[in-house]
Amino acid sequence: MSHPFLSDAAVGFLPSPVRDVWELSMQPGMVSLAGGNPDLRLSDTGWMAEAAARAITDQGDEVLQYGSGTGFAALREAVVEVMSAEGVSASTDSIQVTAGSQLALDLITKLLFARGDTILAEGPTYVGALGVFGGAGVRVEHVEMDDDGLQPDALRETIDRLAGQGRRPRALYTIPNFHNPTGVSLAAGRRAEIVDICRAAGIPIIEDNPYGLLSFGEYDVPSLHSLDPELVIYLGSFSKILAPGLRVGWACAPTWLRRPLQLASESAVICASVLSQELARSFVAGGRWRDTVSAAAAEYARRAEALNGTLRPLLPAGAELTTPAGGFFSWLTLPEGWSSAGLLDHAVDEQVVFVPGASFYADDDGERQFRLAYSLENPLRLDEGARRLGRALASYGSALNVART
Amino acid sequence: MSHPFLSDAAVGFLPSPVRDVWELSMQPGMVSLAGGNPDLRLSDTGWMAEAAARAITDQGDEVLQYGSGTGFAALREAVVEVMSAEGVSASTDSIQVTAGSQLALDLITKLLFARGDTILAEGPTYVGALGVFGGAGVRVEHVEMDDDGLQPDALRETIDRLAGQGRRPRALYTIPNFHNPTGVSLAAGRRAEIVDICRAAGIPIIEDNPYGLLSFGEYDVPSLHSLDPELVIYLGSFSKILAPGLRVGWACAPTWLRRPLQLASESAVICASVLSQELARSFVAGGRWRDTVSAAAAEYARRAEALNGTLRPLLPAGAELTTPAGGFFSWLTLPEGWSSAGLLDHAVDEQVVFVPGASFYADDDGERQFRLAYSLENPLRLDEGARRLGRALASYGSALNVART
Repeated sequence: MSHPFLSDAAVGFLPSPVRDVWELSMQPGMVSLAGGNPDLRLSDTGWMAEAAARAITDQGDEVLQYGSGTGFAALREAVVEVMSAEGVSASTDSIQVTAGSQLALDLITKLLFARGDTILAEGPTYVGALGVFGGAGVRVEHVEMDDDGLQPDALRETIDRLAGQGRRPRALYTIPNFHNPTGVSLAAGRRAEIVDICRAAGIPIIEDNPYGLLSFGEYDVPSLHSLDPELVIYLGSFSKILAPGLRVGWACAPTWLRRPLQLASESAVICASVLSQELARSFVAGGRWRDTVSAAAAEYARRAEALNGTLRPLLPAGAELTTPAGGFFSWLTLPEGWSSAGLLDHAVDEQVVFVPGASFYADDDGERQFRLAYSLENPLRLDEGARRLGRALASYGSALNVART
Repeated sequence: MSHPFLSDAAVGFLPSPVRDVWELSMQPGMVSLAGGNPDLRLSDTGWMAEAAARAITDQGDEVLQYGSGTGFAALREAVVEVMSAEGVSASTDSIQVTAGSQLALDLITKLLFARGDTILAEGPTYVGALGVFGGAGVRVEHVEMDDDGLQPDALRETIDRLAGQGRRPRALYTIPNFHNPTGVSLAAGRRAEIVDICRAAGIPIIEDNPYGLLSFGEYDVPSLHSLDPELVIYLGSFSKILAPGLRVGWACAPTWLRRPLQLASESAVICASVLSQELARSFVAGGRWRDTVSAAAAEYARRAEALNGTLRPLLPAGAELTTPAGGFFSWLTLPEGWSSAGLLDHAVDEQVVFVPGASFYADDDGERQFRLAYSLENPLRLDEGARRLGRALASYGSALNVART
């Protein structure tokens, strides 16, 4: 991808690892645990056809014309309502609507980083964030996580180690709830500590929260944003609770970021699709959204259990599987000496596919790990997928033993 | 807008000058010649409510889900058809759909430039492009234009002058048809010469063409892209011929740019609103789009004439007004010693508003100039607006004379 007309930035963008296994996952009969798409059959979209038609007919002058740079005013109010359902109190003024929360991350990266700067992020982390950081020439330093999420001690040590090299990270990027790709959540008890560490070090936090409403049970933990609204930039999305094809997300921004973020968003896209914004507003205003999202979360819980419950007894000794309390993903660490890329060959023979772990790291970690997405297949298929994966683990394990003897 | 958490990039983004006069333009009775919005009453959107409802109902799995990184396949074919109506032959493979052509420009700027690099652009040029370049830390060198558009000699001289400073421009940004803000078009006879100059200097061209289909008469000039498809990146948009609120545009890219552009677009927004993409496809597939666009262009021609025909006899000696052959804008240069910002005060008193010229330059040029947009008001109002502007010119001229005596 090098060419004399291209800048250094052009080589930093990363292809999607999901796309790498896309053709495999489309093979007839394959159980795909690869893509992290929401299942639209769980969204309440029955109202949407009529709402779209009505918006175009009655509000065409508004929804088909250029819109406000900060976002449709009524949608910003709806976003505040969505955030309040997660216990986050935000003002309409703090909401910047973006063409998907991916764009919010892209814009914030533009505004906070110069090329060569450093960002902290969980290891592993969201591949789409790695792509943004790579394109912006930002160096990613991973911070270790465990079953309670990002480790405060590891965060402190990483900041100190980088300070020893004269490097101050310009931000921490974190997905505290039902993390992509691990499914792990940041323990409530760690949250204030992490915010304190970052505040003391002068490091703003980007809190990416696309899955927060898709909790499998009671979930009452404070958002990082609510612990320090001037330090923490919160990213939210309608993609996982309504429809990703609309491309509507938002940032809830500290005061110092609002004006630059608005100008950067206008500069990139002028505004998000105004018709999409009106549909997202309609979803919230309709009032049934809380029940819809709860019902979807309950179904995702059944799917997580169908996959992980069946898979767990089939795991080899030394393997570790996370237990998500919400969201779309679980994460499997294979025993020492195993490789997830090696396992994938056996899995494909058994007609099940996943995304190997290396893609979720900016460094060369993740070789023994992989992501399992249970969001798109139904529980029966997930149960079958887990059995196939069990057989793949067995045949790969045998092959490894043969190779060693 | 400075803050310790913000990077240098954050200060480069520019507010819209149209927004500066927005409140003025919303005052009751004001004739606004400020905003360059298309008039949606001239778009054929009667079919759209039903098409949106049908797409959501019948193709919800597709239009509400994440879409392809390059764009909806059927839309890319539709774009090729739209381009062929302008005499541009393009392959589907070359089309990258973006969330508005603004995003295409933003992504291409990321891919071609490092901070501190130089871009060439007409002086004056599109303010939204200046915002993108400002945010990316790209230095703009204006190239002089006249009534036949960008001047080849001035282009050559600018490249030579910069070479003397050790600076090679990384691209030329140009709006060859019905230029924003001047309304001027690049003469057919200059096109090959400009492409030759850039090819010889190793400078790719970004050809921004949002208004190309809105010609007031026969218009048969080659696109720059058709003269060298590997040197020229073509940007197109549905905003001016269908509806800007959908946010659908495209780049027709040389082979060397396609893969980086796709990855950069995925990294920024994953994809454009898929529902919007389907509606743009539907617009083209419906078949009536050519007639609709022709009818809209004929009305814009009437509006240009209503404004400029009335205004021309009212101009003071030494003033120059361009005569657009398409698009939304004309451009007025005041006599020596006059200022468009000074005139604006008198214009507002007469209840007519425009955007002063300084905003359309990266340097301190444009003080005597301003843009007149005739796209949104009807001919009667434009005739009235021209008369009011004539009175403002007279009263401002008198005030200047009094001040000098």
